[in-house]
Amino acid sequence: MDSLSVNDDRLLGRLRRLGEIGRDEQGRLIRVAASDTEKLGRDQFVAWLEEVGLEVAIDRIGNIFGIWRSNYHQGEAPLMLGSHIDTVINAGIYDGCYGVLSGLEVIATLKESGFTPSRPIVVAAFTNEEGVRYAPDMMGSLVYAGGMDVDAALATVGTDGTLLGEELGRIGYAGEHEPGFMKPHAYVELHIEQGPVLEREGIQIGAVENLQGISWQRVSVRGDANHAGTTPISMRRDAGYAAARVITFLRDRARSSNTPTVATVGSIEFEPNAINVIPSRATFTVDLRDPDEDRLLEEEAALERFLNRLATEEGVSIDVDRLARFQPVKFDTEIVALIERAASRRGHSHRRMTSGAGHDAQVIARIAPSAMIFVPSIAGISHNPKELTDDSDLVAGANMLLDVVTELTNTK
Amino acid sequence: MDSLSVNDDRLLGRLRRLGEIGRDEQGRLIRVAASDTEKLGRDQFVAWLEEVGLEVAIDRIGNIFGIWRSNYHQGEAPLMLGSHIDTVINAGIYDGCYGVLSGLEVIATLKESGFTPSRPIVVAAFTNEEGVRYAPDMMGSLVYAGGMDVDAALATVGTDGTLLGEELGRIGYAGEHEPGFMKPHAYVELHIEQGPVLEREGIQIGAVENLQGISWQRVSVRGDANHAGTTPISMRRDAGYAAARVITFLRDRARSSNTPTVATVGSIEFEPNAINVIPSRATFTVDLRDPDEDRLLEEEAALERFLNRLATEEGVSIDVDRLARFQPVKFDTEIVALIERAASRRGHSHRRMTSGAGHDAQVIARIAPSAMIFVPSIAGISHNPKELTDDSDLVAGANMLLDVVTELTNTK
Repeated sequence: MDSLSVNDDRLLGRLRRLGEIGRDEQGRLIRVAASDTEKLGRDQFVAWLEEVGLEVAIDRIGNIFGIWRSNYHQGEAPLMLGSHIDTVINAGIYDGCYGVLSGLEVIATLKESGFTPSRPIVVAAFTNEEGVRYAPDMMGSLVYAGGMDVDAALATVGTDGTLLGEELGRIGYAGEHEPGFMKPHAYVELHIEQGPVLEREGIQIGAVENLQGISWQRVSVRGDANHAGTTPISMRRDAGYAAARVITFLRDRARSSNTPTVATVGSIEFEPNAINVIPSRATFTVDLRDPDEDRLLEEEAALERFLNRLATEEGVSIDVDRLARFQPVKFDTEIVALIERAASRRGHSHRRMTSGAGHDAQVIARIAPSAMIFVPSIAGISHNPKELTDDSDLVAGANMLLDVVTELTNTK
Repeated sequence: MDSLSVNDDRLLGRLRRLGEIGRDEQGRLIRVAASDTEKLGRDQFVAWLEEVGLEVAIDRIGNIFGIWRSNYHQGEAPLMLGSHIDTVINAGIYDGCYGVLSGLEVIATLKESGFTPSRPIVVAAFTNEEGVRYAPDMMGSLVYAGGMDVDAALATVGTDGTLLGEELGRIGYAGEHEPGFMKPHAYVELHIEQGPVLEREGIQIGAVENLQGISWQRVSVRGDANHAGTTPISMRRDAGYAAARVITFLRDRARSSNTPTVATVGSIEFEPNAINVIPSRATFTVDLRDPDEDRLLEEEAALERFLNRLATEEGVSIDVDRLARFQPVKFDTEIVALIERAASRRGHSHRRMTSGAGHDAQVIARIAPSAMIFVPSIAGISHNPKELTDDSDLVAGANMLLDVVTELTNTK
């Protein structure tokens, strides 16, 4: 079986065709969850599932499954492959879609080869992984893994005031199956790295052994809005200055440590936000990530201590809201080892690594042994039209997935 | 003449009545330049000018003048008093209006007393001092003093897309007079301090001897938008972090110096401004002020040196736009001394001081000897509904203005 390879042209062709679906007048790719453009992407995916001869199943949260049931092993728990096909606004074409279409390609390749798997193989496209229109992200897999009630998820109100449940019905993807209706035997997700590590190190394949814990907090600092010209520096309670102190604290702390901790302040708002008024309020977000739960807890505690000290020093009041918290996830060591062996056999350089981004695999890991395969992202760019992976790396990754699936479903 | 005093009730009553004009449904005072609500404020002011029997003149930029020409000295250059009656959004009732209505009150008091001034006395309400809807601020006085072409000013596009010239015509305040049609003999502006110094020191009257130079710049930092989870700290080009470094640099430098320099970052914007994306762009404003031109130049140079170093250290590119630059202004020493003597005679505590805010007086100082009188602002609050000055201080300030006007126009 080792000489079997995916059909490069078919995989890359589908990836590009899906990437053309959902372009706006300015050419921006926008297929946010359960939108009209995402329906078109779903319809194309379902058409391809049918083309390959797979059974199509939709669950109540709109997750799409293409199921290959061989004649002999219908009763076994399936091996599941997948990712998502919804996108952010002004997206690249690889994030999510690459994993879904590679899963489909692997099944098609195995089917055409006459391979008889030991269990059903399923390719899944999970609903609303990006969380752009409806929060939280990774919603479809979260509901599927039992981490969120399906009715609560369907009642989610979007940024545009719509209800997810109504939108899924409107676009024809409110399915009948209860989420979780197939418990996977294992789950493997192929994805672009969305980070710069593989490319920088010149490595082709990442065997993802764990996933960072994520802590999202919103920090609100309140000071006094006073006139920028008439208020001596010593009499100020400047919320903007306090926010800047937090930003430099987090960055300098992360840079001077030798841990993989990352800290980001990605969004900020001042009030009243006028050139000549000292900010009375600064609201900003803090994104902390670490693959080790104890270290993540310590980073959160260090921030809390700093905020307390800062509030006293600057005479400001500081409130913190927790927006999201995911514990680090450890993937299945046997599947990770399988990925490494497969890479070695094909002659690809590889390394174990941590996923810095969140993925459906971290949620499905709650109900089945899971792991991920990464391929390089040029310059680490993602969530951006400049997102790019070399065709040769895309094909190499799909063949890794093929080999791992073969191993996991081989009857020999 | 020293025993003459203004009519407290009339002054305070008018101040409060004007402060009720332009309230929105939430009770917020909003009379931005040349708006429908500002028209109502202008109409009330003109009605009061006529009530006092003054000649009303409007110039092409919409400045309103109430002119008291005595029978004997029509040919002399007038003594001008004034300020502005436009407001910021959600304003207090004192900023600007106090100076205009005190000027009117002083003229009314002198007129009623049978006083015969040596020259005409004019009260002016200058257009668009606040600069909220149309930039730059202090526009009406700037055009009047010849510092900005009137047609260029009328062609200014507002934040709402309107043209100032059209809006002035629409509200009936596009006058016939050429700006500058009366060259003042001298100009005196009474104003609330808008800062905390007088209240903190328990002093009633500020004799304003100079006005800080103001440097407004917009700084744009460009880095790379990358994923907050997958991009190691060492590989980031974080525009938000660079912005935070500038904010802390400016504040720490100003705090550690023993000069009156103030530095403020009042507004900021990140792009894409998402919790999990490293900011690719941070745009923020820098407001630097100092009463000494050489020191202001040095502060600008120090910022420039810091930005250059930061760009190299952080691998970001930084652009700076100059938004506004006013040199420090020195007021007329004789008028300042007159104010001090008047305060002493009335038994009010007083001090010389620097204005931290910009005022029409700084522009009119280009064409006539000028000075300002400050009264305390409680807690230094301004541009805010909490803006407040005690009635007794308001009356004391108006009587200072009365005494100074009497001295400057006394024929004896």
